[in-house]
Amino acid sequence: MSDFTLLKNLCQIHAPSGNEAPIKEFLLSYIENNKSNWKVEPQVIHGEEFQDCIILKFGKPRTAIFAHIDSIGYTVRYEDQLVPIGGPHAESGTKLVGEDSLGPIECELLITEDQQVKYKFGRAIDTGTDLTYKCDFRETKQYITTCYLDNRLGVFSALKVAETLENGVIVFSCWEEHGGGSVPYLIKYIYENWKVRNALISDITWVTDGVHPGNGVVVSMRDRNIPRRAFINKIVGLAQSSKIPFQLEVEANGSSDGREIQTSPYPVDWCFIGAPEDNVHSPDETVNKKDIASMIELYSYLMKKL
Amino acid sequence: MSDFTLLKNLCQIHAPSGNEAPIKEFLLSYIENNKSNWKVEPQVIHGEEFQDCIILKFGKPRTAIFAHIDSIGYTVRYEDQLVPIGGPHAESGTKLVGEDSLGPIECELLITEDQQVKYKFGRAIDTGTDLTYKCDFRETKQYITTCYLDNRLGVFSALKVAETLENGVIVFSCWEEHGGGSVPYLIKYIYENWKVRNALISDITWVTDGVHPGNGVVVSMRDRNIPRRAFINKIVGLAQSSKIPFQLEVEANGSSDGREIQTSPYPVDWCFIGAPEDNVHSPDETVNKKDIASMIELYSYLMKKL
Amino acid sequence: MSDFTLLKNLCQIHAPSGNEAPIKEFLLSYIENNKSNWKVEPQVIHGEEFQDCIILKFGKPRTAIFAHIDSIGYTVRYEDQLVPIGGPHAESGTKLVGEDSLGPIECELLITEDQQVKYKFGRAIDTGTDLTYKCDFRETKQYITTCYLDNRLGVFSALKVAETLENGVIVFSCWEEHGGGSVPYLIKYIYENWKVRNALISDITWVTDGVHPGNGVVVSMRDRNIPRRAFINKIVGLAQSSKIPFQLEVEANGSSDGREIQTSPYPVDWCFIGAPEDNVHSPDETVNKKDIASMIELYSYLMKKL
Repeated sequence: MSDFTLLKNLCQIHAPSGNEAPIKEFLLSYIENNKSNWKVEPQVIHGEEFQDCIILKFGKPRTAIFAHIDSIGYTVRYEDQLVPIGGPHAESGTKLVGEDSLGPIECELLITEDQQVKYKFGRAIDTGTDLTYKCDFRETKQYITTCYLDNRLGVFSALKVAETLENGVIVFSCWEEHGGGSVPYLIKYIYENWKVRNALISDITWVTDGVHPGNGVVVSMRDRNIPRRAFINKIVGLAQSSKIPFQLEVEANGSSDGREIQTSPYPVDWCFIGAPEDNVHSPDETVNKKDIASMIELYSYLMKKL
Repeated sequence: MSDFTLLKNLCQIHAPSGNEAPIKEFLLSYIENNKSNWKVEPQVIHGEEFQDCIILKFGKPRTAIFAHIDSIGYTVRYEDQLVPIGGPHAESGTKLVGEDSLGPIECELLITEDQQVKYKFGRAIDTGTDLTYKCDFRETKQYITTCYLDNRLGVFSALKVAETLENGVIVFSCWEEHGGGSVPYLIKYIYENWKVRNALISDITWVTDGVHPGNGVVVSMRDRNIPRRAFINKIVGLAQSSKIPFQLEVEANGSSDGREIQTSPYPVDWCFIGAPEDNVHSPDETVNKKDIASMIELYSYLMKKL
Repeated sequence: MSDFTLLKNLCQIHAPSGNEAPIKEFLLSYIENNKSNWKVEPQVIHGEEFQDCIILKFGKPRTAIFAHIDSIGYTVRYEDQLVPIGGPHAESGTKLVGEDSLGPIECELLITEDQQVKYKFGRAIDTGTDLTYKCDFRETKQYITTCYLDNRLGVFSALKVAETLENGVIVFSCWEEHGGGSVPYLIKYIYENWKVRNALISDITWVTDGVHPGNGVVVSMRDRNIPRRAFINKIVGLAQSSKIPFQLEVEANGSSDGREIQTSPYPVDWCFIGAPEDNVHSPDETVNKKDIASMIELYSYLMKKL
């Protein structure tokens, strides 16, 4: 069993935005089976008042990790039309999977000459069915390539951090890829109950002209949103003293669960920290293993020091 | 007196987003005069802490109906310029009505060759005056055509459902056509007081290549926002067992009060359910009477079963 | 010492969105040094639970003034690239200032032929450094010209109003130029503690075809957002009876702290009231002194009468 078996399992779960119940069930079962081996056993908070989200509370928390559990995908419209969930970037021929009233589906994506997005399948698929990429998990010495590293890798990293976490909160959130909707009540809960004022966004970012695979986890100084400078400076200072490899990001665009924390009615500081990937939102998202290692390390370090 | 007298009266009320006081007064008076004939007499909640909104509480509520009471229109800018309220789609020659310091106004819309929107009237109109379509209510055996079926029909349907409602909340909200602003405090109130976790959006949708007039009320599986799949599945299951005619919708765009429920800090599930119309946001919005009947029926059924 | 020394000092403070700590410190010190000379000494509310914001509470408040303290600017990306903070409008050659690990910076803005925004400086600047316009404060008999009248003039006006204010709240907010993020918790605090339901947005607007320099402070009837008509009517009525010069604005675009009040879960009415400027978001923002005078006068009047 390789170190990445858990990640591989996570990447294969069908859970596009709005339909996160399957990954919630997987996570609840995983946590139940593993938490007794963790350094501190967390309180597991879930249920109808949290829709398909899960909160893990360890010790006396000061900082919360947010890892979204939904993915991009497609919704079947009428006839053979598809409507995007989030911002998928796939080519004609991509394999899509799902299930409707007639049973399991494995079909093919078709982008027409006039840029319409359709499916090819032997029968009509029920209107409203959601489809996700068929997972083809590939591992080399240096890289992992698969669909849905965004954000199953953020979830994986949080679960690895959980193993040794003493004080903190881990939040598994929904709908991040499609406009959000769960962070507002999650942040309300953790602020009102535990006055947690620091949030780290465990998510995946982009390889760019300034961010390179293998150079370490990315600490994002800003994207479309601008976190508070005092908090970013503190994180960067800690990262520097940790000696863990990391790189800085500055972007004008892109967004995360941090956006909804920023606009929430709670004075919570946030910072996006995550591995960079190539082939964003495609079936071939690729991340360097070194960046995964430094992501887990930096999170573990920051959860102690913040 | 036809069955649609109330609807006709509603469509004639001048109440664009931000200026909902006239329809609030009409509704308060209508509710006062009729509630003693309803199966259950609701608590009527309104006043300065609710701006121009009204909440009706029946029995022990589990589900809330949201019907927005504002409409699209225009604001007079400087000289003869008009600025849209929401997204009106009207042609040159459309009759607009309103009132300013000099008295009542009935003027004509003019769209210039360079797509500027202006009014034609015998005198200058005060800056800031809001104008709405002049109502021309037309009824045939099968159809109703008028301005403002969106959303006076959603209000009408909610008032019809009120007649037999035993447990539930009906919310009359403001500003829906122009970015929202009342749903955040309304959902806060109904969740914090009664723990209501189901919301149905009583509003009007579009006739499209997959949604046809006369085929029944529309249950929307998604628009720009994606409600939680578990809730949609429950609604669709109930609708199927009800034998009431209905049709499914899947869209990439469009939005409603559901958007603000989705992004609120309360774990409330929502689903848009409403009759489809042709000639959206024009003075000639058209709805099939069968779809109005099935809208009222399905709401009555769901408010019992959810 | 001219009347505008305080304004000049405010315009020189480096405090782009996300990095408001320097102006918070300036304001706390100014308030500490001056509040004993004010008609009523306010309660000064600040600290980590308010990030870099400040709330001043005078007497028994009914109305709150919101003045944002952040400014537009640029963030250094990789190499010599700049990313905007908010919506700056500057030309090649504009002087920018800031500081990084190697010391103070005064560099020059460069807009390339393909519209990329860069800096010219003798050395590389640390990634993530934020830069603001170098202040060149110019005063004539009629006009003030400088960067950052938006919104240091709104802050200046609020501080002038503070001198004679008996009952009210003054809020210094952050992030307004870049999507917001502090108004949600500020409005929560002032509504939940003092049930304040009126808000005035002390900010700077645009000279247009309908708004002219020297004609008085602007009462905005709408911008991208539409405040509640009943509140606007009350303000306009009071402004008329005050005999203070003012002008009305109606716009389709533009936004302010009012947007976040509108979408907050509190039933707070708001109205934007501020002096108009030319050369918006440039280093040469220009405001007529008469409009500054009428801004301070109208605010003082409204805070008494509302």
